[in-house]
Amino acid sequence: MNFLSDTTAPAHPALLDALARANEGFAPSYGADPVSQAVKQQLCDLFETDLEVIFTVSGTASNALALSVLCPPDAMVLCHDEAHIHRDERGAPEFFTRGAKLLPLAGEHAKIHPDALADTLRQWPSDFVHATPPAVLSLSQLNESGCAYTLDELDVLIGQAKARDLLVHMDGARFTNALVSLSCTPAEMTWKRGVDALSLGATKNGVMASEAIILFSSVKDRLPQLLANQKRAGLMLPKMRYVSAQMGAWLDKGLWLDLAQQANAAAKRLSDGLSAVDGAELVHPTNGNEVFIRLEDGLAARLREAGAGFYSWPDGSARFVTSWCTTDADISALLDAAR
Amino acid sequence: MNFLSDTTAPAHPALLDALARANEGFAPSYGADPVSQAVKQQLCDLFETDLEVIFTVSGTASNALALSVLCPPDAMVLCHDEAHIHRDERGAPEFFTRGAKLLPLAGEHAKIHPDALADTLRQWPSDFVHATPPAVLSLSQLNESGCAYTLDELDVLIGQAKARDLLVHMDGARFTNALVSLSCTPAEMTWKRGVDALSLGATKNGVMASEAIILFSSVKDRLPQLLANQKRAGLMLPKMRYVSAQMGAWLDKGLWLDLAQQANAAAKRLSDGLSAVDGAELVHPTNGNEVFIRLEDGLAARLREAGAGFYSWPDGSARFVTSWCTTDADISALLDAAR
Amino acid sequence: MNFLSDTTAPAHPALLDALARANEGFAPSYGADPVSQAVKQQLCDLFETDLEVIFTVSGTASNALALSVLCPPDAMVLCHDEAHIHRDERGAPEFFTRGAKLLPLAGEHAKIHPDALADTLRQWPSDFVHATPPAVLSLSQLNESGCAYTLDELDVLIGQAKARDLLVHMDGARFTNALVSLSCTPAEMTWKRGVDALSLGATKNGVMASEAIILFSSVKDRLPQLLANQKRAGLMLPKMRYVSAQMGAWLDKGLWLDLAQQANAAAKRLSDGLSAVDGAELVHPTNGNEVFIRLEDGLAARLREAGAGFYSWPDGSARFVTSWCTTDADISALLDAAR
Amino acid sequence: MNFLSDTTAPAHPALLDALARANEGFAPSYGADPVSQAVKQQLCDLFETDLEVIFTVSGTASNALALSVLCPPDAMVLCHDEAHIHRDERGAPEFFTRGAKLLPLAGEHAKIHPDALADTLRQWPSDFVHATPPAVLSLSQLNESGCAYTLDELDVLIGQAKARDLLVHMDGARFTNALVSLSCTPAEMTWKRGVDALSLGATKNGVMASEAIILFSSVKDRLPQLLANQKRAGLMLPKMRYVSAQMGAWLDKGLWLDLAQQANAAAKRLSDGLSAVDGAELVHPTNGNEVFIRLEDGLAARLREAGAGFYSWPDGSARFVTSWCTTDADISALLDAAR
Repeated sequence: MNFLSDTTAPAHPALLDALARANEGFAPSYGADPVSQAVKQQLCDLFETDLEVIFTVSGTASNALALSVLCPPDAMVLCHDEAHIHRDERGAPEFFTRGAKLLPLAGEHAKIHPDALADTLRQWPSDFVHATPPAVLSLSQLNESGCAYTLDELDVLIGQAKARDLLVHMDGARFTNALVSLSCTPAEMTWKRGVDALSLGATKNGVMASEAIILFSSVKDRLPQLLANQKRAGLMLPKMRYVSAQMGAWLDKGLWLDLAQQANAAAKRLSDGLSAVDGAELVHPTNGNEVFIRLEDGLAARLREAGAGFYSWPDGSARFVTSWCTTDADISALLDAAR
Repeated sequence: MNFLSDTTAPAHPALLDALARANEGFAPSYGADPVSQAVKQQLCDLFETDLEVIFTVSGTASNALALSVLCPPDAMVLCHDEAHIHRDERGAPEFFTRGAKLLPLAGEHAKIHPDALADTLRQWPSDFVHATPPAVLSLSQLNESGCAYTLDELDVLIGQAKARDLLVHMDGARFTNALVSLSCTPAEMTWKRGVDALSLGATKNGVMASEAIILFSSVKDRLPQLLANQKRAGLMLPKMRYVSAQMGAWLDKGLWLDLAQQANAAAKRLSDGLSAVDGAELVHPTNGNEVFIRLEDGLAARLREAGAGFYSWPDGSARFVTSWCTTDADISALLDAAR
Repeated sequence: MNFLSDTTAPAHPALLDALARANEGFAPSYGADPVSQAVKQQLCDLFETDLEVIFTVSGTASNALALSVLCPPDAMVLCHDEAHIHRDERGAPEFFTRGAKLLPLAGEHAKIHPDALADTLRQWPSDFVHATPPAVLSLSQLNESGCAYTLDELDVLIGQAKARDLLVHMDGARFTNALVSLSCTPAEMTWKRGVDALSLGATKNGVMASEAIILFSSVKDRLPQLLANQKRAGLMLPKMRYVSAQMGAWLDKGLWLDLAQQANAAAKRLSDGLSAVDGAELVHPTNGNEVFIRLEDGLAARLREAGAGFYSWPDGSARFVTSWCTTDADISALLDAAR
Repeated sequence: MNFLSDTTAPAHPALLDALARANEGFAPSYGADPVSQAVKQQLCDLFETDLEVIFTVSGTASNALALSVLCPPDAMVLCHDEAHIHRDERGAPEFFTRGAKLLPLAGEHAKIHPDALADTLRQWPSDFVHATPPAVLSLSQLNESGCAYTLDELDVLIGQAKARDLLVHMDGARFTNALVSLSCTPAEMTWKRGVDALSLGATKNGVMASEAIILFSSVKDRLPQLLANQKRAGLMLPKMRYVSAQMGAWLDKGLWLDLAQQANAAAKRLSDGLSAVDGAELVHPTNGNEVFIRLEDGLAARLREAGAGFYSWPDGSARFVTSWCTTDADISALLDAAR
């Protein structure tokens, strides 16, 4: 009953097969291999557009590298106060942007509130030499409270950002969980809404280590700088085929969607079941594979005694994360212990 | 007949087995897993000392992260003019050190000449507020011309560095190739000579993507900063077990030495055979798995026609790199084409 | 009737005399001159302690250089949301610290509220590798709303900071205005309360361009790094005597206190007079030489027509700044126009 | 007999008068004052072109700020191995460019040799993602050995640079000394030769602290970024009028040329006289106000005993620097002591 994090789960067996297939013979280094090229085509097809992509090995690297070509060093990224880029990356965005500022914005359920964004844009001018100008809006989808912005909510926030010429970054460490939750297409959740760059995470959803940084058409011409930054950051792996092969297998035949659906379904069952128990109160809606729930002390202790692993969150709630390999038996055992 | 680079070669099958074994069940994230802990113990045993280690995924990351805890932003790394950290990493050391200077030093066969080091140390003071002080000496072993410093040569250069309180970094992207060439122990080629930190590369020697940054006892206390920098650089992989597992399999039962020996032997046969041909002249001694040889135009063309892949080097020579999977047949075919 | 900023005012005549005196003969460069040494002694005497000091030429440089030796690149400065270092320095602290984070805290009248500080310290751990640790508390005295922390308020906030081993920086761009407002000694407002480093501003108070960065005994040993950073930032002026001579003349015979008293008195008269007028409402207490007051549109227009220069502040109020050369006639004319 | 440095000399009395004039009444802050605007016009007239300019307070700041808008963080500045930006600025260019590389080139008398430049450009490609691309050629005029490039020499080097699309920066800390030595116009020594940006120094030539960063038409559009960097570096002084007023007085009625002529003439007399003495040997031609001369130990001791102040240079020579206030009597006394 490990609900600590989706990064504690093993990789799906298809990934090992893909690595074995990628391990045949010699191949060009640094991403020029045929596997990487094929995965780019897969992504173009799935996102229904011509895009540029590079592969990397951690969500932090993926976010920070993306921001490095979106935000100048003397400018500012607007994000939610709970955003992973602000709270959980040891300042990687500040490092990769060479000193940009991250401005934390308020909003319930880790969603930026449109009023908070409007107020911030009013307070921080774009062309005053003394002030750090806003340059990027970064949205997490799924976000740090396990919630997904609806397409309408995305429209409002991105509209505000575009009206001030900001670029829009999406932290998609749990992109697929949000995608299957909203039942929309990848295109509908990204470039069709105005997203300029996407950090698409596979690692948390059944993969060993593979993330894609996708530049949509509005910023596609920044690929050379992105490659230079990737190299300079030690993130251009010599044998890139082993990273892209993971992404390819994950995207193939809808595996990414299947794995996310499994994780989301497990989370939903856990969320519904546990919140129905006395002494438990759901803190955020469960839109993906994360459940935040306030537990009375006795209840929390009982769950831990039964062998459930979960984190105590700073806001006092308990966080349960499911993954593609959370079993029905795990959920049942947890709910039995709770009742 | 692919002699382009050891990074174009596939990984040894033992690596895939190791990944499959590592893929069992849940494991703590970010390097706290039992696999990573076990590999640390393997390294302590093999290097015969208590050391600290973190794992990463490219040689550039390994060098730059190591330097990030050895060299302050307003200080200087001394390296050979041909050093990979100076020529081939798009300024990653400058990025990770937050602006340190790399000073290129002269010397034949990509080895720093003791006179060049002495002259530099004389010219650049350690305590003059206007000048960038030397802080680190970085030595590549095997170096960029395929040569290994002898233990005596290491003693001289490191002695000069220590007399000025410099720390010593070893770029060991092809460490094992140098090690088997010198027939010494890992300890003898590193901390027993005064090396403070080692970037130990496995990727070029039969692995998919795994590198170790080793802090010997003199700088072991810098581990917390190294971890912080690793996180900040997006290089603390969530599922680190898959990186350390590769290193573990590679070190296990002498596989790393076997693979390097194979590559070195192939290079030696290639070097001896090709330099005996009319119109070919060896440029550097062959101490590892790289052969630098000047070829008359006709000869070079003949080899390419026969299907040999190799790079033209900036100094006008041709570079042939062998790997663990270079076959006797490859070498024979090359030499046949040459004659 | 120029109330735009204290930086629009000319320098006191004593400053020109001091420059003329400093301009006699040859003198050592880069701060090793006798004038600079003498001013250091003046500061030791006035602050009643052994301190280290360097001189610089803008408040932004003074703050950013001070922070560069207090906050590591992967750590965090806590400051008020309205703080000059956060809002008005184009990210100079991020630049000089090489990428540190500035976290904006709430509190009325631009004073950090102790609850906000406590909450922040609870949310941001000091030793979690994924999170940016708080390293410095920066307090503006006088602050950006023209208010001074009382000595008791300083005790509370600094006590909270010290309990978590944070260093304390004071942005004293208008230090003297706060000092005469509180009627305490420089020591009582700084190191006796736990302030580790002070950016002491003279420019806004009658000087051409002179600021002191003072390291109190707790961080005095950081002087060599401060000097290195000063040089690296192009802020170690070759003929430093002309900067320190200004500071010396300003400190001499209580001139700094006299000038601040004049400015504060003018502000008090303006504040009292204007807030008694219909259609005007004071927004913050007037503790120094800045008055923030909400004006009805007609009233504001009338003042501008009468020739009064003042800025409209982002919060909708009008900001009036007085200086040592604001005259009684200026105030009278303003108040006459208002009535 | 102070020949230590031109930065040890006092300022010309005209400077004090200019400060007094600038000190009349209120003026806009941060460079928007009429004095600064007038000086910009003076520079346009003297350089016979439409240019952009900002003012700063040290040569290091001037060089580093200029380079900050010429060289990207992952690119490279080519300069002479003895260049001030490489040797004497504690890495300020690396800091301001956010991590660019400075590559030291060889050449006698601190002049880059065209072969060294050609060789470097051949070795370092512009479009290889792994290598740091050359972006800027920086030339010191007068250089660190007291020599001036001839106009023909400038044409050769700048031609090589332009053929590879490099921008050209001129470190003119002693610009006027070179100018009067070559008897050409400011335009002929700069933009007419292809110089894109000039760091024009006044401080070493009779001024307290004033330097201009001039962007010629090819890079004029980078002014907004230069202003942002100036602010971010704490170098946008609140009361900028006192910096620009110095530059204005210095340029007025040819004072800058007169002062340089005096200093150069003194150096010439010193150079001619001292090199005619037994035991003295001129090391570099004397093109400006610096004399580098090798002195036998006895001779050097004799000069010091007579009260002459000069530095021992790293190459073993003695450096004598003259300034606008070096007197004929000083030179005579020195030569008398030498004979």
